[in-house]
Amino acid sequence: MKKEYLINTKTSKILYDKIKDLPIIDYHNHLSLDDIRENRRYTDIYDLWIKPDPYKHRAMRMCGVEERYITGDASSKEKFMKWCETIPKLIGNPLYVWSKMELERVFGIVDFQNEKNAEEIYKKSNEYLMANEITPKTLLKLFNVELACPCVSLTDDVSFFEGEENLSPSLRGDDIALPDKDVINKLSSDIKSLADYKTEISKRLDVMKKAGCKFSDHALDDGFLYYEDDGNNEGRFESILKGDTLSEEGKERFFSYMLTYMCTEYAKKGFTVQLHIGAKRETSTRLRNLAGKAGGFAAIGNSVDIKSITKMLDILEQSEGGLPRMVLFTLNPSDNAMISVLSGSYSKDGVSGLITQGPAWWWCDHKDGIMDVLKNITSFGIFSNFIGMTTDSRSFLSFVRHDYFRRIVCEFLGEKLEKNELMCTIDDLEKILRDICFNNAKI
Amino acid sequence: MKKEYLINTKTSKILYDKIKDLPIIDYHNHLSLDDIRENRRYTDIYDLWIKPDPYKHRAMRMCGVEERYITGDASSKEKFMKWCETIPKLIGNPLYVWSKMELERVFGIVDFQNEKNAEEIYKKSNEYLMANEITPKTLLKLFNVELACPCVSLTDDVSFFEGEENLSPSLRGDDIALPDKDVINKLSSDIKSLADYKTEISKRLDVMKKAGCKFSDHALDDGFLYYEDDGNNEGRFESILKGDTLSEEGKERFFSYMLTYMCTEYAKKGFTVQLHIGAKRETSTRLRNLAGKAGGFAAIGNSVDIKSITKMLDILEQSEGGLPRMVLFTLNPSDNAMISVLSGSYSKDGVSGLITQGPAWWWCDHKDGIMDVLKNITSFGIFSNFIGMTTDSRSFLSFVRHDYFRRIVCEFLGEKLEKNELMCTIDDLEKILRDICFNNAKI
Amino acid sequence: MKKEYLINTKTSKILYDKIKDLPIIDYHNHLSLDDIRENRRYTDIYDLWIKPDPYKHRAMRMCGVEERYITGDASSKEKFMKWCETIPKLIGNPLYVWSKMELERVFGIVDFQNEKNAEEIYKKSNEYLMANEITPKTLLKLFNVELACPCVSLTDDVSFFEGEENLSPSLRGDDIALPDKDVINKLSSDIKSLADYKTEISKRLDVMKKAGCKFSDHALDDGFLYYEDDGNNEGRFESILKGDTLSEEGKERFFSYMLTYMCTEYAKKGFTVQLHIGAKRETSTRLRNLAGKAGGFAAIGNSVDIKSITKMLDILEQSEGGLPRMVLFTLNPSDNAMISVLSGSYSKDGVSGLITQGPAWWWCDHKDGIMDVLKNITSFGIFSNFIGMTTDSRSFLSFVRHDYFRRIVCEFLGEKLEKNELMCTIDDLEKILRDICFNNAKI
Repeated sequence: MKKEYLINTKTSKILYDKIKDLPIIDYHNHLSLDDIRENRRYTDIYDLWIKPDPYKHRAMRMCGVEERYITGDASSKEKFMKWCETIPKLIGNPLYVWSKMELERVFGIVDFQNEKNAEEIYKKSNEYLMANEITPKTLLKLFNVELACPCVSLTDDVSFFEGEENLSPSLRGDDIALPDKDVINKLSSDIKSLADYKTEISKRLDVMKKAGCKFSDHALDDGFLYYEDDGNNEGRFESILKGDTLSEEGKERFFSYMLTYMCTEYAKKGFTVQLHIGAKRETSTRLRNLAGKAGGFAAIGNSVDIKSITKMLDILEQSEGGLPRMVLFTLNPSDNAMISVLSGSYSKDGVSGLITQGPAWWWCDHKDGIMDVLKNITSFGIFSNFIGMTTDSRSFLSFVRHDYFRRIVCEFLGEKLEKNELMCTIDDLEKILRDICFNNAKI
Repeated sequence: MKKEYLINTKTSKILYDKIKDLPIIDYHNHLSLDDIRENRRYTDIYDLWIKPDPYKHRAMRMCGVEERYITGDASSKEKFMKWCETIPKLIGNPLYVWSKMELERVFGIVDFQNEKNAEEIYKKSNEYLMANEITPKTLLKLFNVELACPCVSLTDDVSFFEGEENLSPSLRGDDIALPDKDVINKLSSDIKSLADYKTEISKRLDVMKKAGCKFSDHALDDGFLYYEDDGNNEGRFESILKGDTLSEEGKERFFSYMLTYMCTEYAKKGFTVQLHIGAKRETSTRLRNLAGKAGGFAAIGNSVDIKSITKMLDILEQSEGGLPRMVLFTLNPSDNAMISVLSGSYSKDGVSGLITQGPAWWWCDHKDGIMDVLKNITSFGIFSNFIGMTTDSRSFLSFVRHDYFRRIVCEFLGEKLEKNELMCTIDDLEKILRDICFNNAKI
Repeated sequence: MKKEYLINTKTSKILYDKIKDLPIIDYHNHLSLDDIRENRRYTDIYDLWIKPDPYKHRAMRMCGVEERYITGDASSKEKFMKWCETIPKLIGNPLYVWSKMELERVFGIVDFQNEKNAEEIYKKSNEYLMANEITPKTLLKLFNVELACPCVSLTDDVSFFEGEENLSPSLRGDDIALPDKDVINKLSSDIKSLADYKTEISKRLDVMKKAGCKFSDHALDDGFLYYEDDGNNEGRFESILKGDTLSEEGKERFFSYMLTYMCTEYAKKGFTVQLHIGAKRETSTRLRNLAGKAGGFAAIGNSVDIKSITKMLDILEQSEGGLPRMVLFTLNPSDNAMISVLSGSYSKDGVSGLITQGPAWWWCDHKDGIMDVLKNITSFGIFSNFIGMTTDSRSFLSFVRHDYFRRIVCEFLGEKLEKNELMCTIDDLEKILRDICFNNAKI
């Protein structure tokens, strides 16, 4: 990676040199548990570079690539070639840069041009994969990952994490907060009531904790509304257990109830909760059928109902264990100020950064999106409390984005210092950067 | 125009020199059909520079100019003088710059100062108009316009466009999508049912297409909600035909129905659809009475309901002809990310840029607004698919805004390249610029 | 204050030197009326620097400081020490800079570092307070305040303002626009009907005017909806007078009615109305109990309903006296364009800047927030009409923020000029700056 990529001031460069080699903590991602468990050896660049990356699938669609070359029955090589044809069209989009960073960091390839030398790149990279053992474990080492936290469900077996030195599970709580009958039965066949369900959840959270889990997350999708308990949630649970479908409002009410319960448990057990706010997951029915739920066609929802968020936090703050530590992710950039400012609306004696805004998320993970979040956290919140980058990715190659992030954050601070905005020293900034790029995610 | 206006990096300058002389395609505007038809010769600068430009009327009002000097009974010269008094107050607003660009480009006037030399400018420019034939045709030539597309209604006679070399109609579909009795009768007196209406629309679209029309547009104003067909739209059509007024929801439902129908027709006939999202047209009743519907007092609406947009696109995608090519314009800048990201949510094999965000629209057409759209398209979408500038203006002098736009887009890319963000070459950027400033609008 | 703080271009520096010594007009703040009345002499830096500044309390909470050191029973010195511990964590946040500016400007302290020399700073500053008479009057002189306008209620005795040379009241109308029984009785025990209430309000506004009041303000909090008069507001008033509680909608309707009435009175009497739009005041019940209503834990609400705003302005414009001059403050930055553009939607012959956007407000009062408002006013409105800075603060030391603002606005314009965006001269800019930093607030 060129030293000056994204780095433009002398101060930014000094700062970057000080923190670029810090290990990575990637506290929330969707890396394949199967690949990890079997420590799969990759033998085709397509499986590593393109297949697990819906961002790339989306970009190909935007350039008119036929679906058979994206999720269809074309060969790995054909798909690879189509992706290479697409790359030159992506100038300005982060994928253009990330793709080059990924090739360079993992395969040592610095001469990718476009479809013209794609065949050669394909050959070279696959030869590299034959000659070198590239697996989840070697990739974690290559990227200097101290800790990666792939998402698991509470129903997953996480025992294999216990021996792992640089892996721990991160809990994805969505299927538990709004379960169907199967999820409940999978959790335990002995659950007969909401009380049973809650007890079992609490027990399983202890199992998670033992496996190293310190983070959970919940999606508050477009349209999220928070309801206080109306006393009817036992009834709703019984309906679910019978296999009935709740009304839309019934679902929202039950979800609010369970989310509240789970957050009080997280507070008691010391988990940090990530709320991912504002995804619009229902867009194209056609692409959902072709590419599956996580196929890269999700969009950004309207502004979140802030009363719902403040009500929920208020109720949690008044509950026995108080608020858990929370990281709020915004997908709609016009929510940034509204969400970031909440970091000053709730507090807990002795806890620094109880509520903070998370890094730029999903489609917002690009220079402008990251800068926007940095500005909001700095201006409305407290920068030194920022938890820093996580990839949220399905691809092991996405760890390059920590370097991307670090360059941007150094440029952000370096430029501010040189523009006489900060009134502090480079040493002050180095300390904050070490916290943001590494220490603050060590929870 | 000073070479360095808006241009600050060496790269920006190089890029601008490469593309500044490209012809103009202005694919959506409101130029006067009457002036065009009769190839009106302008003899007073007021008629050319001020009268057809509600942006200027609005600015005068904001500076306290009495309405009689704006839309009232004052003389052309008095109105001209008041506008010249206003200009120096507009420093920072794009009107300040555009006005100077317009004077320079058309009249060769570079010494406008303020009210002090306004009288002299008035004399000089009117002498120029007497000595030179300034008409729609000569202006199109002067601005190197390859194609301009003024808005027409489906009920307009567009036969005169057929012989025109650099003019073709752009369809404004609003009066058809939510018609009153008169519009229906004007379209054809034989229409007795919704089926007749749809058949007639389809026929007339073929007439439009023959006249060179490739673009249509619809306004989705503040509060737009999309409804799926409830089976009652024949009944609603009959009510309209009887002269009855629909309920608010009835209007919304019928509008949704017709918009869907028209978009499926556009898809079949190969039209590109522009959706203009988020205007708030009802503000001052007083100014509506004084200045008419398009009098420059419209505002920006709340965020669009994203579920309505995604639902409509999803239904269209599943219809027989699939989605037409669509350009989405946002008036509320806080919708930019939400709308821009939709370009990745729908696709069509073989079509590059099926859904894209349009250029900064109406009140957003200024440097910050343009930069904001460029950033969003680059980060959330694919810059090389961007359709580029159109004026949407009522004034022939507004073609200067293509130069304004080109300068800004060169500055945008030049700065990014010099700041080490792009990892590409100047030649790569030149290619993209040629597409954005010209080729992509050639549909 | 370092000359170059926030100032980076040659032009910015030239501009700043021209306007930095202009007197201050602070047309809306919450300075303590008691302190002013008794011209309180401050003897402990805590009472001056920390106690009246909820922004600082909020920042301490975000850094985990125990509530007893914020609003609890710890000693002034202990609280001072905790605040000094917190400051170094705030790099990037405006509080970091403001705190240093405050120490320097009032106490001449330039060597604050962190908790390590806090004890020494405490000693030095309190010695300074013993040796020098620091009171509201001397502080106004120190900061070169030509006029400060602390908020009062219509029920307050404002007679003491009449003799004051650089103080006049600013009316906070919230308790009158949605009164309870006590407020009505406090206004006058003779009020028996809505008509009486309105008459009394009108009389008291004349008293206010006589005391120098030219500004009023109303809060349109998160969720504000405007209702036209349904003819039932006399009844609602009677209920309030009986001590009954209105329904939520009843409150909203009565508030809309009274706000309309008061704005027509403001128009007649020549008051400028400030609308503070979009605060979310209900967040943490716990902090409300601990720290009181204004304890620094408020948040930002969702986007304002634009139909409510335009409807209200439309009705006022059509009323007898027309619209009063209005300054619209936005707390949610994603409302900036929507609100700023309204300056062109209503007008009054002969009044420049009838409706304008106000300066960055509350949590938005930082460099990014200020820049964002400046950009919006410039691009969507008319910069030369901008009313400029007011602190809205409870602390006398916050007058440093006028210097902060002036630096930013000079940087904004200087950079634009040097980047070839403005096409005007430095003299043009100086004139505008003098208006924005001083003249435009002289109403």
